[in-house]
Amino acid sequence: MLAELGWGWIFPPAEPLPWGNKAQVNAFCFFLLFFPFRATSCGSTPEGDSQAQSKKALKKQQKEAEKAAKKAEKQAKQVSTMGSWHEGDFAKDQYGVPPMFQSQEKLDRVLVRVQDLTAEKAGQLLWVRARIHTSRAKGKQCFLVLRQQQFNVQALVAVGDHASKQMVKFAANITKESIVDVEGMVSKVEQKIESCTQQDVELHVKRIFVVSQAEPRLPLQLEDAVRPEGEGDEEGRATVNQDTRLDNRVIDLRTTTSQAIFRLQSGVCQLFRDTLSNKGFVEIQTPKIISAASEGGANVFTVSYFKTSAYLAQSPQLYKQMCICADFDKVFCVGPVFRAEDSNTHRHLTEFVGLDIEMAFNYHYHEVVESITDTMVQIFKGLRDRFQTEIQTVNKQYPSEPFKFLEPTLRLEYWEAVAMLKQAGVEMGDEEDLSTPNEKLLGRLVKEKYDTDFYVLDKYPLAVRPFYTMPDPINPKYSNSYDMFMRGEEILSGAQRIHDAQLLTERALHHNIDLEKIKAYIDSFRFGAPPHAGGGIGLERVTMLYLGLHNVRQTSMFPRDPKRLTP
Amino acid sequence: MLAELGWGWIFPPAEPLPWGNKAQVNAFCFFLLFFPFRATSCGSTPEGDSQAQSKKALKKQQKEAEKAAKKAEKQAKQVSTMGSWHEGDFAKDQYGVPPMFQSQEKLDRVLVRVQDLTAEKAGQLLWVRARIHTSRAKGKQCFLVLRQQQFNVQALVAVGDHASKQMVKFAANITKESIVDVEGMVSKVEQKIESCTQQDVELHVKRIFVVSQAEPRLPLQLEDAVRPEGEGDEEGRATVNQDTRLDNRVIDLRTTTSQAIFRLQSGVCQLFRDTLSNKGFVEIQTPKIISAASEGGANVFTVSYFKTSAYLAQSPQLYKQMCICADFDKVFCVGPVFRAEDSNTHRHLTEFVGLDIEMAFNYHYHEVVESITDTMVQIFKGLRDRFQTEIQTVNKQYPSEPFKFLEPTLRLEYWEAVAMLKQAGVEMGDEEDLSTPNEKLLGRLVKEKYDTDFYVLDKYPLAVRPFYTMPDPINPKYSNSYDMFMRGEEILSGAQRIHDAQLLTERALHHNIDLEKIKAYIDSFRFGAPPHAGGGIGLERVTMLYLGLHNVRQTSMFPRDPKRLTP
Repeated sequence: MLAELGWGWIFPPAEPLPWGNKAQVNAFCFFLLFFPFRATSCGSTPEGDSQAQSKKALKKQQKEAEKAAKKAEKQAKQVSTMGSWHEGDFAKDQYGVPPMFQSQEKLDRVLVRVQDLTAEKAGQLLWVRARIHTSRAKGKQCFLVLRQQQFNVQALVAVGDHASKQMVKFAANITKESIVDVEGMVSKVEQKIESCTQQDVELHVKRIFVVSQAEPRLPLQLEDAVRPEGEGDEEGRATVNQDTRLDNRVIDLRTTTSQAIFRLQSGVCQLFRDTLSNKGFVEIQTPKIISAASEGGANVFTVSYFKTSAYLAQSPQLYKQMCICADFDKVFCVGPVFRAEDSNTHRHLTEFVGLDIEMAFNYHYHEVVESITDTMVQIFKGLRDRFQTEIQTVNKQYPSEPFKFLEPTLRLEYWEAVAMLKQAGVEMGDEEDLSTPNEKLLGRLVKEKYDTDFYVLDKYPLAVRPFYTMPDPINPKYSNSYDMFMRGEEILSGAQRIHDAQLLTERALHHNIDLEKIKAYIDSFRFGAPPHAGGGIGLERVTMLYLGLHNVRQTSMFPRDPKRLTP
Repeated sequence: MLAELGWGWIFPPAEPLPWGNKAQVNAFCFFLLFFPFRATSCGSTPEGDSQAQSKKALKKQQKEAEKAAKKAEKQAKQVSTMGSWHEGDFAKDQYGVPPMFQSQEKLDRVLVRVQDLTAEKAGQLLWVRARIHTSRAKGKQCFLVLRQQQFNVQALVAVGDHASKQMVKFAANITKESIVDVEGMVSKVEQKIESCTQQDVELHVKRIFVVSQAEPRLPLQLEDAVRPEGEGDEEGRATVNQDTRLDNRVIDLRTTTSQAIFRLQSGVCQLFRDTLSNKGFVEIQTPKIISAASEGGANVFTVSYFKTSAYLAQSPQLYKQMCICADFDKVFCVGPVFRAEDSNTHRHLTEFVGLDIEMAFNYHYHEVVESITDTMVQIFKGLRDRFQTEIQTVNKQYPSEPFKFLEPTLRLEYWEAVAMLKQAGVEMGDEEDLSTPNEKLLGRLVKEKYDTDFYVLDKYPLAVRPFYTMPDPINPKYSNSYDMFMRGEEILSGAQRIHDAQLLTERALHHNIDLEKIKAYIDSFRFGAPPHAGGGIGLERVTMLYLGLHNVRQTSMFPRDPKRLTP
């Protein structure tokens, strides 16, 4: 019943609204004048090798973008002045721009989700709130694609019993990315609509109201932002480069690809925590402002702290170990980690999310390695089983092979890896650390030999690990430490930690670490400490490598690197 | 079978261990010499009003502590030189200090948890790893209390078939807080052991080995640290003051009370996330290093960021709203929040954990208020149903009334609260903010009238809220904003946000905010933004107030305030 009443019911014109109907319309015009448009003709530029696209095509594209922008501006002005169209229009209460949503009334109207618009709903008159993804006017008809997150549906406004000529014009002029409330009849279509996720139905629009109007010139086009790299190069169609994306992250995050990436990432966190909670781990919260640089002093950000200075934690390492010494037995934490590294690579961020684990063990640190690898396997399985839509959505833009893993997880020792690399022609010392290219090469060799994208490299040389790493009991040149790899890139670094204050002191001195600065840490081990091990996982890397993406900025919502602090 | 082999099997003496048997024992002596003992005679001092304890009692207590510490040192020396006792001792393989756990061997021995030592296990010979909580030698017997997290059990080493005189002496001399592996027969006791959580059984020890030895002088005594305030004052028994606790947090966290507090807090996070995930919320990760102070510029920490400077986020506010503009619809995040406030109160921290929610709504922000209150109610119910042991453990030291809440949650409007306060004799203006004492008084009035410890205060005066708060649609002096309270203290602040770039600009100018600095934020609303609302919850406050504690430092593992940066 209420659904029949339309906007007039929610916003009775007699009501003295502070931001009322007319005022709103005028305000919108002011808004258009007040804010200078962005210089967006370069907003969509080719990604990667610019030579792939001819200059001519680029020019053509710029011209088209300019033309489209002008048209959009004109349309927006028409929408914002639509008040004048109402005279003599039989459908005048069925469309418009209502006043800003200020919680004026509670309305008992159900909004149906776009993904639920299926053939079973045919014949039902329903309300939907969605964005205008595209619109195309054609004579007395206007075709809209309505988008909601990863899903979209076609809608049709056609002159007839329910829509006037003015209403169709109004609909056609709503700017892309505006949010609208649409009431429409769900109708089966004869031919599948290939360009939409809801392929079997379309909405025949009876009413359409603008909830929030987008400025006419978008800094990037969503169609461009989801185009696979390379595709469309020949026709001069654009993709969007990374800086344009990140400068306009709020729009870039609306693409089906971004929606899928970050919904899957949310799943990684959930699977991580659920698996560990089921294993009896306790979640802890560790401080990020610390009095001494946790890992030696290099690459640390300094914070002004009242009359003194402090640092941003490079890892929760010391704190999670203190929790083990404080009898929490098995702990995990999820939180930001800060590294003041001036590295501008595809896989370094100055702030990332650490998934950290620390665990007391009974006899051997492999108990911990097994707990961690099992957790990773549970994550991989959970993603595979619960996020198939998201994986396929990302694959459309960034094709990659499905992620492969073994059960139990493959564990190689460092000397074996060195032997494999040497056999492949690499020259390196037995106790030398792996370079990034050698890590990648090793990943390919392991994939060839064992058919897995995930493995553990165990027993690293002691010399290349932090001072708190437990030495191997037999060969003091090696250590009880390990890294884990996904598609040939490191995602976790971990070790058995030294739980004995005396040995820890010796090792810190060996590394020339100022004992005074790590006093609280070493003191934690003086009053009984269980043997323990752990590791830290980079969330953005896990998401990136699971999906086979190539830049960690794609899996950080608002990435931070030496050159980027905004948005 | 393997369980029968003892330590000799794990650490065959013939094996050339770098930190081998003998070396380890000698090293331990060196360790005792190398590290100066802490000046701990003042480690345990009375809490609160020192006049409650007479000077005489204090002196007596100091003297006793000194005496106990000297005895402990002597004992520890005896344990560390226990090698010499072995000669002629039939039980010499059944006790000792094995070499440091370095993952020498994988041992197939099951360790049973202390909480699982019940009467049903009587007659079984089991291994347990636990701390020496207390020990008391008495003739040919030594009674140990073995503690594991919140649980403890009595163990008995008695001269006889399985233990020699030397073995009993060895056990009696193990320092408190050392970690031991004990093999013992579970035996029913005739009289309940009131001082232990496992009251029906004790362990008759057959073997005992020290896994990790604690230094003999503890900076605080765990018995003192769990003593209820006030109790024992007459007898001159000590409690531990807050600074001593926090300076030695690793030991303070071992108390049953701390174990219970932080296990329950882990539950708060889990319940928060699980409830929201079930409601379709997506977890997001927001940056903590930001280029402009998010809430105006006061109370913000500055970070050196390569050649420029940046700030620590005072809330994820702007980013979670950007996620709403980016179509994530309903989001939450859990992460650190930084406030450079020079407030040294019981409820302020400079770094705390924010549980943040932001949600697009259909018609009215009360949809969001209901989502949040329902989430809080799910948390309260979850804690009540799943953490009763923890609640009761904390109540032993800090008694409080059970936390009360209503369904549906009580929602009062600001004017009603002002009326209640005025009726109770408070003089205040209608649009004046609530002072802390008035908040507390209001909490008491609400409890009396409605019998609830949790309620929402809605429709705050616009003037006392941040610039991005949506004004009320009818009365522009009020706003669509709310706080939530537990036991009379604020735990959440939230509002409908302005989703219109123009109004947002006006309100920012009204608050004298530099538009240039919040450009990225305002720009987020230019391309279509759904109406939305949200709120931020302080985790430490929720834990504190749910448990009826009185200082937020009790519910922050490693609290940060203007005067504390360590540990």
